[in-house]
Amino acid sequence: MSLQAMDTSHVSLVSVSLNSDGFDKYRCDRNLTLGMNLISLSKIIKCAANDDTIIIKAGDGGDKITLLFEAQNESEVAEYEIKLMNLDSEYLGIPDTTYNVTIKLPANKFQRICRDLSQIGDAVTISCAKDGVRFGAAGDLGSGSIRLAQTASSDKPEEAVTISMQEALCQSFALKYLNHFAKATPLSSQVTLSMSPDVPLVVEYNISDNDDENPSNIGFIRYYLAPKIDDTDES
Amino acid sequence: MSLQAMDTSHVSLVSVSLNSDGFDKYRCDRNLTLGMNLISLSKIIKCAANDDTIIIKAGDGGDKITLLFEAQNESEVAEYEIKLMNLDSEYLGIPDTTYNVTIKLPANKFQRICRDLSQIGDAVTISCAKDGVRFGAAGDLGSGSIRLAQTASSDKPEEAVTISMQEALCQSFALKYLNHFAKATPLSSQVTLSMSPDVPLVVEYNISDNDDENPSNIGFIRYYLAPKIDDTDES
Amino acid sequence: MSLQAMDTSHVSLVSVSLNSDGFDKYRCDRNLTLGMNLISLSKIIKCAANDDTIIIKAGDGGDKITLLFEAQNESEVAEYEIKLMNLDSEYLGIPDTTYNVTIKLPANKFQRICRDLSQIGDAVTISCAKDGVRFGAAGDLGSGSIRLAQTASSDKPEEAVTISMQEALCQSFALKYLNHFAKATPLSSQVTLSMSPDVPLVVEYNISDNDDENPSNIGFIRYYLAPKIDDTDES
Repeated sequence: MSLQAMDTSHVSLVSVSLNSDGFDKYRCDRNLTLGMNLISLSKIIKCAANDDTIIIKAGDGGDKITLLFEAQNESEVAEYEIKLMNLDSEYLGIPDTTYNVTIKLPANKFQRICRDLSQIGDAVTISCAKDGVRFGAAGDLGSGSIRLAQTASSDKPEEAVTISMQEALCQSFALKYLNHFAKATPLSSQVTLSMSPDVPLVVEYNISDNDDENPSNIGFIRYYLAPKIDDTDES
Repeated sequence: MSLQAMDTSHVSLVSVSLNSDGFDKYRCDRNLTLGMNLISLSKIIKCAANDDTIIIKAGDGGDKITLLFEAQNESEVAEYEIKLMNLDSEYLGIPDTTYNVTIKLPANKFQRICRDLSQIGDAVTISCAKDGVRFGAAGDLGSGSIRLAQTASSDKPEEAVTISMQEALCQSFALKYLNHFAKATPLSSQVTLSMSPDVPLVVEYNISDNDDENPSNIGFIRYYLAPKIDDTDES
Repeated sequence: MSLQAMDTSHVSLVSVSLNSDGFDKYRCDRNLTLGMNLISLSKIIKCAANDDTIIIKAGDGGDKITLLFEAQNESEVAEYEIKLMNLDSEYLGIPDTTYNVTIKLPANKFQRICRDLSQIGDAVTISCAKDGVRFGAAGDLGSGSIRLAQTASSDKPEEAVTISMQEALCQSFALKYLNHFAKATPLSSQVTLSMSPDVPLVVEYNISDNDDENPSNIGFIRYYLAPKIDDTDES
């Protein structure tokens, strides 16, 4: 099951993919594209309790999707129907790209950096070199920059900072969108930033199942954001 | 001691009753009706610390009520005086009614159902049958319905769903008011909904004293709400 | 290191002093006065993590101050520069005064009293006598007063109420400012109120270092607030 959405200003794109083996039961007879209002969907999803079983049903050519939330003890069943929308845009095929720079860092550290630098300015400049990465911002009150060194391997993989790069790169991005993306932080201990000249940044979080002892990867959420063209580097 | 208040639009009514044996000391020489601004009263009550002893005093024909909050160690005493109001309306005698349908359910479940369905629409339709009760709502984004089955007796009384009815009934109510009523949820593990055709719904929470080992019922809070006449059932 | 700031209406003043021995390292070659926007400074300070080491640097005649936040493991360094401001006002020398009345009380109790009485009115009247102190307020809904008795010595110094006075005193202060001052409550278990006729009230919190076993006093924060001249005592 995959999902795509674009913000109203068409600057950023989100793409979610969940493998069928991440579901307890999964049946899909043929490919089906469903248009849905995300605000409606999120309102309904909030009505599920934490340990409810969620069933999603959609028929061929129907104008609605059905969500069933079943409590553990089965004495309570909630059934919601959401009207579908006709979408103007088609599902986008996003080409697989190889990126010049890939940075893996703790997801909560990325979230904090974006939030902190939002205090200083509207945009962050990400400068990547072999030994580390620098996040910088500037504004009326002054400037700020946060440098992360690549960590030694092996110890505490969830706290590692890993940089793989072919060439040094420096790009600026609107922090407003990155702060939205960082709301996915609880999904994954690490986030991956992928960058190349003149293509959108990819911010990717893996989605694992809830098996604490042996978690397996069942999908991902990827955010795409174009770099700021008028690159006002603050350094 | 009993208390009544009506919302400004005169759609709903609340009635609180506290038995004299719920108080450590209680003296009332003759019946006294005191008009008070509830916002003022709640501001003052918030000034009491959790383990303060509260003393409420009012004299004959006075124009104020006195509240004393005494700390456990008696080194601190707070004294508040609230001006009384002349009330236009009399204290209402609410007749005891027998209801066709009585539903007892966990108070936190009722609170969650009202909150969830508020995401969908403005009104909830409560449909009651022998084996269960259905709460439904509909709106622009779609529809939702939550069904509770009557639970087997004896196990975990605070999680029980108990339905006693003489005839099937289906009525709609404004969720705005039910959500206000549900703020009383911390008072009691169970809430009782009583309904009959053409009379207001009663939402009742018992008030117990704080003796954890042997709690005794010392009063109740009852909310009254007229059904929506233009019953737009969504099913 | 000391710091002064005045609110925009010039009614209250805050003065912070941190001794050099409260710092791990402290070097100050000559006295330096730096003007800074407090909102900018607090935005930057919020970017420091709880266990970061903070380094503050300023040079002679520079137009900026540099703050460095270093994480424990030194793999992350954040560097912020804040532009300095030209201040209209000079650093005020505040004369040491002996006060007629000094009240020491638990800081959280003072905070709660100010917050509670804000429900009643805009100003608090502090009346001090040998055996206790009374905080009173009055407003449209009625009146309130909280009396604290002087506590016996020796037991639980952090909960003590200690009054030292030369003459009874009764002054009124705007609660709006006292509530702002009380935000310093987490700094210290006790707060000291010092009053004399016709001079500003001083609300003082000591600042201790984080050594839990043997905390030592490394500075203070003092708030100054002029009494209300049109003293409308509510009693």
